[in-house]
Amino acid sequence: MNEATQTMLPTANARIYPRGALDVLSRAEVARLRDASSGGMHDLLRRCALAVLTSGSASDDPRAAQELYPDFDIQVLQQDRGVRIDLLNAPAMAFVDGEIIRGVAELLFAVVRDLAYTAIELNERDLDSGEAITDSVFGLLRNARVLQPSEPNLVVCWGGHSIGRDEYLYTKQVGYELGLRGLDICTGCGPGAMKGPMKGATIAHAKQRRRTMRYIGITEPGIIAAESPNPIVNHLVIMPDIEKRLEAFVRMGHGIIVFPGGVGTAEEILYLLGILLREENADLPFPLILTGPTAAAPYFEQIDQFLRLTLGEAATSRYEIIVGDPGKVAKRMASGVRKVKDWRIAQKDSFFFNWAMHVPLEFQKPFVPTHEAMAALDLHHGRKPHALAADLRRAFSGIVAGNVKEDGMRRIEERGPFEIHGDRDMMEALDGLLRAFVEQRRMKIAGEYRPCYRVVT
Amino acid sequence: MNEATQTMLPTANARIYPRGALDVLSRAEVARLRDASSGGMHDLLRRCALAVLTSGSASDDPRAAQELYPDFDIQVLQQDRGVRIDLLNAPAMAFVDGEIIRGVAELLFAVVRDLAYTAIELNERDLDSGEAITDSVFGLLRNARVLQPSEPNLVVCWGGHSIGRDEYLYTKQVGYELGLRGLDICTGCGPGAMKGPMKGATIAHAKQRRRTMRYIGITEPGIIAAESPNPIVNHLVIMPDIEKRLEAFVRMGHGIIVFPGGVGTAEEILYLLGILLREENADLPFPLILTGPTAAAPYFEQIDQFLRLTLGEAATSRYEIIVGDPGKVAKRMASGVRKVKDWRIAQKDSFFFNWAMHVPLEFQKPFVPTHEAMAALDLHHGRKPHALAADLRRAFSGIVAGNVKEDGMRRIEERGPFEIHGDRDMMEALDGLLRAFVEQRRMKIAGEYRPCYRVVT
Amino acid sequence: MNEATQTMLPTANARIYPRGALDVLSRAEVARLRDASSGGMHDLLRRCALAVLTSGSASDDPRAAQELYPDFDIQVLQQDRGVRIDLLNAPAMAFVDGEIIRGVAELLFAVVRDLAYTAIELNERDLDSGEAITDSVFGLLRNARVLQPSEPNLVVCWGGHSIGRDEYLYTKQVGYELGLRGLDICTGCGPGAMKGPMKGATIAHAKQRRRTMRYIGITEPGIIAAESPNPIVNHLVIMPDIEKRLEAFVRMGHGIIVFPGGVGTAEEILYLLGILLREENADLPFPLILTGPTAAAPYFEQIDQFLRLTLGEAATSRYEIIVGDPGKVAKRMASGVRKVKDWRIAQKDSFFFNWAMHVPLEFQKPFVPTHEAMAALDLHHGRKPHALAADLRRAFSGIVAGNVKEDGMRRIEERGPFEIHGDRDMMEALDGLLRAFVEQRRMKIAGEYRPCYRVVT
Amino acid sequence: MNEATQTMLPTANARIYPRGALDVLSRAEVARLRDASSGGMHDLLRRCALAVLTSGSASDDPRAAQELYPDFDIQVLQQDRGVRIDLLNAPAMAFVDGEIIRGVAELLFAVVRDLAYTAIELNERDLDSGEAITDSVFGLLRNARVLQPSEPNLVVCWGGHSIGRDEYLYTKQVGYELGLRGLDICTGCGPGAMKGPMKGATIAHAKQRRRTMRYIGITEPGIIAAESPNPIVNHLVIMPDIEKRLEAFVRMGHGIIVFPGGVGTAEEILYLLGILLREENADLPFPLILTGPTAAAPYFEQIDQFLRLTLGEAATSRYEIIVGDPGKVAKRMASGVRKVKDWRIAQKDSFFFNWAMHVPLEFQKPFVPTHEAMAALDLHHGRKPHALAADLRRAFSGIVAGNVKEDGMRRIEERGPFEIHGDRDMMEALDGLLRAFVEQRRMKIAGEYRPCYRVVT
Repeated sequence: MNEATQTMLPTANARIYPRGALDVLSRAEVARLRDASSGGMHDLLRRCALAVLTSGSASDDPRAAQELYPDFDIQVLQQDRGVRIDLLNAPAMAFVDGEIIRGVAELLFAVVRDLAYTAIELNERDLDSGEAITDSVFGLLRNARVLQPSEPNLVVCWGGHSIGRDEYLYTKQVGYELGLRGLDICTGCGPGAMKGPMKGATIAHAKQRRRTMRYIGITEPGIIAAESPNPIVNHLVIMPDIEKRLEAFVRMGHGIIVFPGGVGTAEEILYLLGILLREENADLPFPLILTGPTAAAPYFEQIDQFLRLTLGEAATSRYEIIVGDPGKVAKRMASGVRKVKDWRIAQKDSFFFNWAMHVPLEFQKPFVPTHEAMAALDLHHGRKPHALAADLRRAFSGIVAGNVKEDGMRRIEERGPFEIHGDRDMMEALDGLLRAFVEQRRMKIAGEYRPCYRVVT
Repeated sequence: MNEATQTMLPTANARIYPRGALDVLSRAEVARLRDASSGGMHDLLRRCALAVLTSGSASDDPRAAQELYPDFDIQVLQQDRGVRIDLLNAPAMAFVDGEIIRGVAELLFAVVRDLAYTAIELNERDLDSGEAITDSVFGLLRNARVLQPSEPNLVVCWGGHSIGRDEYLYTKQVGYELGLRGLDICTGCGPGAMKGPMKGATIAHAKQRRRTMRYIGITEPGIIAAESPNPIVNHLVIMPDIEKRLEAFVRMGHGIIVFPGGVGTAEEILYLLGILLREENADLPFPLILTGPTAAAPYFEQIDQFLRLTLGEAATSRYEIIVGDPGKVAKRMASGVRKVKDWRIAQKDSFFFNWAMHVPLEFQKPFVPTHEAMAALDLHHGRKPHALAADLRRAFSGIVAGNVKEDGMRRIEERGPFEIHGDRDMMEALDGLLRAFVEQRRMKIAGEYRPCYRVVT
Repeated sequence: MNEATQTMLPTANARIYPRGALDVLSRAEVARLRDASSGGMHDLLRRCALAVLTSGSASDDPRAAQELYPDFDIQVLQQDRGVRIDLLNAPAMAFVDGEIIRGVAELLFAVVRDLAYTAIELNERDLDSGEAITDSVFGLLRNARVLQPSEPNLVVCWGGHSIGRDEYLYTKQVGYELGLRGLDICTGCGPGAMKGPMKGATIAHAKQRRRTMRYIGITEPGIIAAESPNPIVNHLVIMPDIEKRLEAFVRMGHGIIVFPGGVGTAEEILYLLGILLREENADLPFPLILTGPTAAAPYFEQIDQFLRLTLGEAATSRYEIIVGDPGKVAKRMASGVRKVKDWRIAQKDSFFFNWAMHVPLEFQKPFVPTHEAMAALDLHHGRKPHALAADLRRAFSGIVAGNVKEDGMRRIEERGPFEIHGDRDMMEALDGLLRAFVEQRRMKIAGEYRPCYRVVT
Repeated sequence: MNEATQTMLPTANARIYPRGALDVLSRAEVARLRDASSGGMHDLLRRCALAVLTSGSASDDPRAAQELYPDFDIQVLQQDRGVRIDLLNAPAMAFVDGEIIRGVAELLFAVVRDLAYTAIELNERDLDSGEAITDSVFGLLRNARVLQPSEPNLVVCWGGHSIGRDEYLYTKQVGYELGLRGLDICTGCGPGAMKGPMKGATIAHAKQRRRTMRYIGITEPGIIAAESPNPIVNHLVIMPDIEKRLEAFVRMGHGIIVFPGGVGTAEEILYLLGILLREENADLPFPLILTGPTAAAPYFEQIDQFLRLTLGEAATSRYEIIVGDPGKVAKRMASGVRKVKDWRIAQKDSFFFNWAMHVPLEFQKPFVPTHEAMAALDLHHGRKPHALAADLRRAFSGIVAGNVKEDGMRRIEERGPFEIHGDRDMMEALDGLLRAFVEQRRMKIAGEYRPCYRVVT
């Protein structure tokens, strides 16, 4: 490794020989991997690799990394011994005394492994049916070696990546209580509510002298650059898109905890309820806990009221809200996971992948919020709760897009507000929820908040 | 498990949930596995499973097993948790107090795993090119988890399955000396020279306190029923045919030891020399030792003379003959394996698969000894040694077939002796070799030996 | 290491740095160890080391080793890093390519460790009370690291070291069946019935894929030279005398199997029954099985009849005789060991040392068969079985000594036959037993058998 | 476990069966342990146990623990299975769902183990000679299983337990850099500079995927109650007094890093230099680095100047001062430890205990600062540096005592200031150093600082 000096920050060059999923490849596989990484996949690979190599840096701004290391490059080379990865002008912070930090190297191998799998294996498949999509999710997770026939103990934690200090400390405490009870953590692998539970669990696992613990981060190419994996993640998986990432969460997790987290998180709750409220999943045990510090009570109250109004009281049987009590959260989750285990044994279902959960194709394919799609939503009382949940999620997604996402804002500018067909009370509740988020500063709006939709009753 | 009483020998029924390569399968994979094993593959599966379940029994006669357990059946069933294997009226000797012996279960999983891989993965591939065949060999071995990026230490032992007591004890002594030097053993997994080296190595490995040792048995469906894996085998691989099995030996092994073993063994020596004498493989280090007890000296002398005469003195640089000195055999093999390691490192070749060895397509496809094929052989001085070795192997194979194999003998009866075009001295040497084997009782001929060929000079 | 050439057999010199119990010693301990081994202990150390270094050799004659390697020497040296052991003119068979075989080195460390413990630790202790003796047995075993808080599974096997081929094969089969059931083996560590069970268990453990198995050999200085540990022994313990060795067997073993084995074995049975028949041990579960091949039936019948006559029918509740059924032996032993486990849990007794077993001081101190001691025996009906068993054992021991041991034979020559006070029927039975052993060639008598005792009724 | 309610804080009762050093004890040992812990040792045991059970609590005030859990008690009970520990009214924070946290239990076993060793083993020894004291330190550490024959990699970190936020963060960064280089940490096991390096190393070890890392805390009974082990400590050792604790540090550590830390730390530097400057230790490599954040520069400058003036320039060859550069500290320490390793190999010294370091008896016995002892100090130029260092340390110790320790202040009140015989410049420098500490608020003085000594030149 030689020190390079032409960039502002210290960099290094290195040759790395991957271990793990990349160490027993055939000549043909190595060649395809080399081709894929030097072709269309190369820019994506470069960005993801840079995110991983700056993991744990002070700045969480992904563009900063791109600008600070403009000469960084990564090349995947072929030799019979297996893959060789060459790093050029890589951030020196990933190295110690000329050798790459082992954990960073593992995350780097994960990047190459998953992008290669997606480029090589999934490219050849026909992913039109729900079964094929689920199978591709399974294939990616197995190839990433995160599917293990061990005891069910994986808790998925959702929540915002930029939360307040109190809320962050609360996620750590919950993680600590989960860790004391032998539970492993899976998150979206960025900062905030993605990092806190892992940090707390790390201390608890050390105190309980656990030897093999999993801190799984599941990300996707559009996010990893912005939310580089925190240093605690010891299993990184890059799913090809948001929908497969969400499916990975719900099929791998034995329970889900939702921390406060802005509109995106609310949307995720509706996604999950849209699945859990389907009749096919009625008997499926799935612990879902919404929790935060005492100060976050209003956030969950508002969500709870909205869900009761729209989906009916029955929907509330699918989740539990616990405020300001990390110990109780962990106890309830542990007992819920035990029920999941009993059910899987009784049903002869696998411990490591929730095949039995019905995820309809409409949840596997992305929703694009055009004016036509928004006008086609059917937000009236009387529909089945799961169908209504699905359309509410879409409405939510569209409104968020119309307010903050580039595509959506442009659409609104061009064609005016979305027309949404729905019952008045439901629409008012949705509107109220959004305004509350704005007030609680969970939704970043430039200037005054102006609704981007019009209700047609 | 219930005891069944309708057969002569004690039997048992059992349900088994595989571990290892079969424990994280997708729904679709389990279904394909179930279908394959209940369809055309079923009879093959049943025979192989029975061979494994009677492993280590006193009788080595495969038909005996089929007759002694006529009601035995095996079924592969699907459940989300993974594969379930049901055994019906299985030999009670595979169980202890109602539970299947763990090592036997592992061999059974290996059978299901490899037949399934062949039926599911290889069926879909186009295996016309040499590269494709090599890739399929690699795929099968990797799926069987015998390709590991560890230090080169795998010695392949060839030789007869029915050898004399002295020769058997000698193979044990050689295995012991190899084991003392930390070398692992790979054989064809039957009795005789297949078992002796493993047994000797087991004791040596125990004395050297090695913890993970490999006793790899590579077999194929036509042989496993006749030569059930000895109880020491802890990695069993079933290759789809003889040619892929041979390629597996030469690509996985870091050296080969040949014990005395009848005409088949002599043919194998020619096969290997046919490969090693190619210019492409000229620089490739590959320790090849022919060895046996003092009494086996004539066997190797005759072979040596024959090889010198036909392939020239140069050919002898590729092998070493050591008689009656197990310690020297092991020392030479250990030093040869070290050279292989150095070469692989220098060439950046893998430790676990000899990609660099050139195996021409003609060695990967079987030779069928018709009168036309035999007449087309070109056994004259002046040809390149490797080409001559290849044709000599074919001549040998054809003559053996004409003498002892059903197909070959029928052809000779119908159309008279094969006509072989070759130089007289070469043909006489070949003839002499065969007569010596007959005298040494290494070749079972009913009645007097009558040559099945005619030399055309 | 340099080859030395002045002796007849190939020898080698080596420097060894022990691991295990000898690798973290204080300066003072290393110095005491050096002093002890160069002082009075040196000859003993030399003889034991030579036995271990020739372990597994064809000849079992210890004097041969002494004569074949007359220049062999061992020195224990001090350095701050710990002990260094220098071997001079050591048997070359203990080495491979200049390095000592790891298992042989471990046995060598065990020799130094145990002799040192005895010389250093026990020398300073007052071993007059039964408690102190038991404590010294415990201390030695703990220092040898054979006391582990794992599941009870240790079966002690007793029996002769020179037994017939059939009997040897039977001990192997029993070992195999024990091994299949996850049981470990402890013996006196020589050949014959000491080796067979370990060999059988090794194959079974391999088939059951057990990783950590214990083949414990417990010996004492007077025996090890004559019965060098077989190569399977992976834990060797040298107790200072026969009585402590016997106590180690009964306190460590969770059950005992007795194979045929000459008069010594019969004496051991009486020793054990003398303990088990005490009221203090009445509730203590302790599986004791006498077993051999069908041909050994008369041996056990005779012993059984003798025990019934002398100790009464009640005594037979303490043992079971099984002939020609290795599977049944193992099943009964496994179920007996389970009962031992339940009892230990209920009594809060340790798994690894049978503190609760009452071993009276008279069993811990050796019996010296003088005419006075023999005359003091009280072999009459009406005594408590355990007291009678103890005196019978002594009578037995004395008669054996009078027939075959140098001391005893000299005493008889000098002062005439022992006078034994006992009931006539009992004495006749004892006499009959001895004559039967002579007939079955289990007792080596030069010339015609002449009783060395006289009954005084 | 039952919840107890009579105290203010939640408590629990529990029965614990120790593992590790306490799981294979003899009957006699268990009895002595029970007696010791119920006799004179009981109150000490109770206080230490409480410190461990409240490890990681917000409050670091030991008296608080005693007051908050007034009904807490611990009893060590005997049973053949081994020791049983009963906890009564123990802090509930040590438990999760009724079970004690495994790491807390391990620390608790360490307390019982070390107090028992001290009470049982050391009580019987004559500790008058330096060798005997060193041997007792060795015995305690070995019994605590922290002496392992692994690679030298143990860095001792000294420094204050109440340091500023910046200084604390700096100790974490140094720990992180040490951890990246595979170094383990040993400290005094309280908060502040005792905890920071362990915390930093934990993250680095996780990133480097190390599996067995040691965070050794060495404490003594007088300190543990006040400075309960931080939750990262995974090996706790309780030495009987301060001198043995210091000897444990210098004999186990392969290098020492000193962070800022008040007068006590300055005294420790003099203690270590007093040893390292002896001729006997002249060749002994021993990396000693004084380091802190940039703001701590004046602290080290002053110390440096003082050492130069008093001990001469030569003394500075024994330490290096690095300010504000954690990476450099770690690099230098890693390279220093490599030199230690080379030296130990060359000298055949052990890796785990620095036998070769000469620690004179005067450093092993405590210094009691009476007027007589202070007047006997000889602080003049011209003495050998190590002798001067030893007297300076004593002067320092006495002055500190006269200012802040109860005994010393009483002596000063009664008999006036100490008279110290020394050269004027040396005394002024010492005076200046103390005043600087007062200014930097590293020395807590009530009211104005008044020197407690008078210089006699």
